[in-house]
Amino acid sequence: MNFFDVISVKEARERLMENFKAYQFETEEIPLLEATNRVLAEDVYSNIDVPEFNRSTVDGYAIKSKDSYGANESIPSLFNILGEVNMGEVPEYEVKTGEAVYVPTGGMIPEGADGMVMIEYTEKLDDQTLMVYRPISVNENMVLRGEDIGKGDLALRKGKRISPETMGVLAALGIGKVKVYRKPKFYIISTGDEIIDLDEELKLGKIRDINSYTLHSLITRLGGQVVGRAIVKDDYELLRGEVEKAVKISDIVLLSGGSSVGSRDYTHKVIDSFRGRGVFVHGISIKPGKPTIIGEGEGRLIVGLPGHPVSSIIVFKAIVEDYVNKKMGVVDFIPKTKAIMDFNFPSSPGNETYQMVKLQEKDGKLYATPSFGKSGMITLLSNSDGYIIIKPHEEGVYKGEEREVYLL
Amino acid sequence: MNFFDVISVKEARERLMENFKAYQFETEEIPLLEATNRVLAEDVYSNIDVPEFNRSTVDGYAIKSKDSYGANESIPSLFNILGEVNMGEVPEYEVKTGEAVYVPTGGMIPEGADGMVMIEYTEKLDDQTLMVYRPISVNENMVLRGEDIGKGDLALRKGKRISPETMGVLAALGIGKVKVYRKPKFYIISTGDEIIDLDEELKLGKIRDINSYTLHSLITRLGGQVVGRAIVKDDYELLRGEVEKAVKISDIVLLSGGSSVGSRDYTHKVIDSFRGRGVFVHGISIKPGKPTIIGEGEGRLIVGLPGHPVSSIIVFKAIVEDYVNKKMGVVDFIPKTKAIMDFNFPSSPGNETYQMVKLQEKDGKLYATPSFGKSGMITLLSNSDGYIIIKPHEEGVYKGEEREVYLL
Repeated sequence: MNFFDVISVKEARERLMENFKAYQFETEEIPLLEATNRVLAEDVYSNIDVPEFNRSTVDGYAIKSKDSYGANESIPSLFNILGEVNMGEVPEYEVKTGEAVYVPTGGMIPEGADGMVMIEYTEKLDDQTLMVYRPISVNENMVLRGEDIGKGDLALRKGKRISPETMGVLAALGIGKVKVYRKPKFYIISTGDEIIDLDEELKLGKIRDINSYTLHSLITRLGGQVVGRAIVKDDYELLRGEVEKAVKISDIVLLSGGSSVGSRDYTHKVIDSFRGRGVFVHGISIKPGKPTIIGEGEGRLIVGLPGHPVSSIIVFKAIVEDYVNKKMGVVDFIPKTKAIMDFNFPSSPGNETYQMVKLQEKDGKLYATPSFGKSGMITLLSNSDGYIIIKPHEEGVYKGEEREVYLL
Repeated sequence: MNFFDVISVKEARERLMENFKAYQFETEEIPLLEATNRVLAEDVYSNIDVPEFNRSTVDGYAIKSKDSYGANESIPSLFNILGEVNMGEVPEYEVKTGEAVYVPTGGMIPEGADGMVMIEYTEKLDDQTLMVYRPISVNENMVLRGEDIGKGDLALRKGKRISPETMGVLAALGIGKVKVYRKPKFYIISTGDEIIDLDEELKLGKIRDINSYTLHSLITRLGGQVVGRAIVKDDYELLRGEVEKAVKISDIVLLSGGSSVGSRDYTHKVIDSFRGRGVFVHGISIKPGKPTIIGEGEGRLIVGLPGHPVSSIIVFKAIVEDYVNKKMGVVDFIPKTKAIMDFNFPSSPGNETYQMVKLQEKDGKLYATPSFGKSGMITLLSNSDGYIIIKPHEEGVYKGEEREVYLL
């Protein structure tokens, strides 16, 4: 670690973007109903006017608004009722002076009418005659053709993650297939002589592969897909062979583990052994997560994550998530909340510190307590709700201070 | 609507829970790697000690701690180096007084040793002899067997939504298959003579089915699945036939649309026509969303949602999400943030008001502006980031006030 040319989180992000400036995530066209949480890969313009007709926003009568001028409780305006418009049908009527047509909410307003009077302000004298007790203004209680979204308007921007609301807009525009980014492909390689997978028998001294599970889950939540997963012993040739497979089929290769000095060395060598830029980030001033290395081989991004579960989660969030979202132009609102710190915590000078915390509500206020635990403990994971970020220039966290907590 | 026996959101939730007290969502066992975002259907106890051996948290030497007492820079304690422990292997050594064994981070500490001295505080005099410059206390720099999670300990509670961190805990415990709730089954029926699906030609007067798309997406995000979807004309027999199909294969039937008085009437009649309790909520004092009806038919939950897209989203979130999460015992942290209101907004007396807002950051502060628009407008969906909730007893929202914004 002494040999590391450690750089800030900000600089690491910039260097990564710079080195993969030309890299493009693939796109695909998928049915709208499958598009929840996917990211739009192109701007969406409307091919139609929304609504496509002058639409009523109330149950009532379509009239010429000027015919209602002066109407009041004592002297209603009188109208001749032509009939009614059914939902989903084009009205057969044209409204002329002194005429009214019943239109339900959402119905199409007939030609000639320029406003809707709500049924509450009317009364039928007989089947043919309507009394209107209030004047309406021009275009009252109606949405004009194209007023919501006009034909040719930009409706949604590239980079938008498709939420239920976005889905609704796309459906309204009649877009049944949507161009989104293909799920970025990840290949996860766990390294270490002591690591075994879940289906292997746990012999004393060995430990279960944890990181490839947490990473798999992080990738799923980010909207990526895992195209390969392997556990590799601490051996240069074995690791190189696996990475060679990985770069052929993935966008991003994650190497997890290798926190010992020896394994870090050959992870570095493996990345440099491929055609390309090699390792370009040799350590990040992030705590935990310092021994992270980032490089390029065969045009693919290769990230060497630290071995501890918490560290690898932090680095994934700080570096990999940031990269993927930037490449797709995603502007997600990162789930976070403000909470009162109920502890003093020193900063780690020169580092960006990520401290796991547990949230608790007391008397309607939200408090954050640090999740302490010895290095590598699993309960650090199960007992945390989120983390705070202490910037390199900050002195630390003071009890009573209100800070953002980023939610896990 | 005048005939509605309108009740509060709180009361509607309670009545719903009360009527479906005995209803159980199904469970299933799935591979761990597929379990992201699913909900644990049972408490998880550990079958093993984590760690399964006394584990070092540093690179250094395992010793008997009392042998280091009194050691300092001028007078180091001397040790006989027995050898080293490799990762993933059971040490062949037993440490006796005056002896030391090298153990890497994560390695297994040999019998006899009760602490680790970091390599930074040692120096090798020769291959066999170690100088230690600092005393360590008992159990320093190590995690004891079972200290993280003990055999038989409750590791995770039923109702936990599986996050990357939860996944890590399950992997550490060697749990490859996990019992979760089956994705709740929803059947979406859109009603209205004017509604057409995306693959139909848009004739003038018709409008695209929007709600079943937004609902599909809300269901996906909630962790449910859509087992059926239909668009039905405003007709009692047609609607009854579709609901009859729906109750056979789903947990929850959502009827969307039918905001006209007539269609509300027969939606009500359809629900009452099945064996069971029938409609038990006839309207909710929620704005928007008042004409919501909730009932039971053939043992299934049937919810009649209002027709406007925003209203149906609000009611889904306020009522359906709440119900599903409560039935599974989920205690998700609802994504929300505090923002400064940059508008005055009156309350709607007696109603719980959900007002859509747009968020904007100015000078590091987050401001919320209401998303106004005419009833049923689509841009209300695309221009909103979240909503605020104004409780029935509140007078309204004041400009400059800080409030929670629930994120979409």
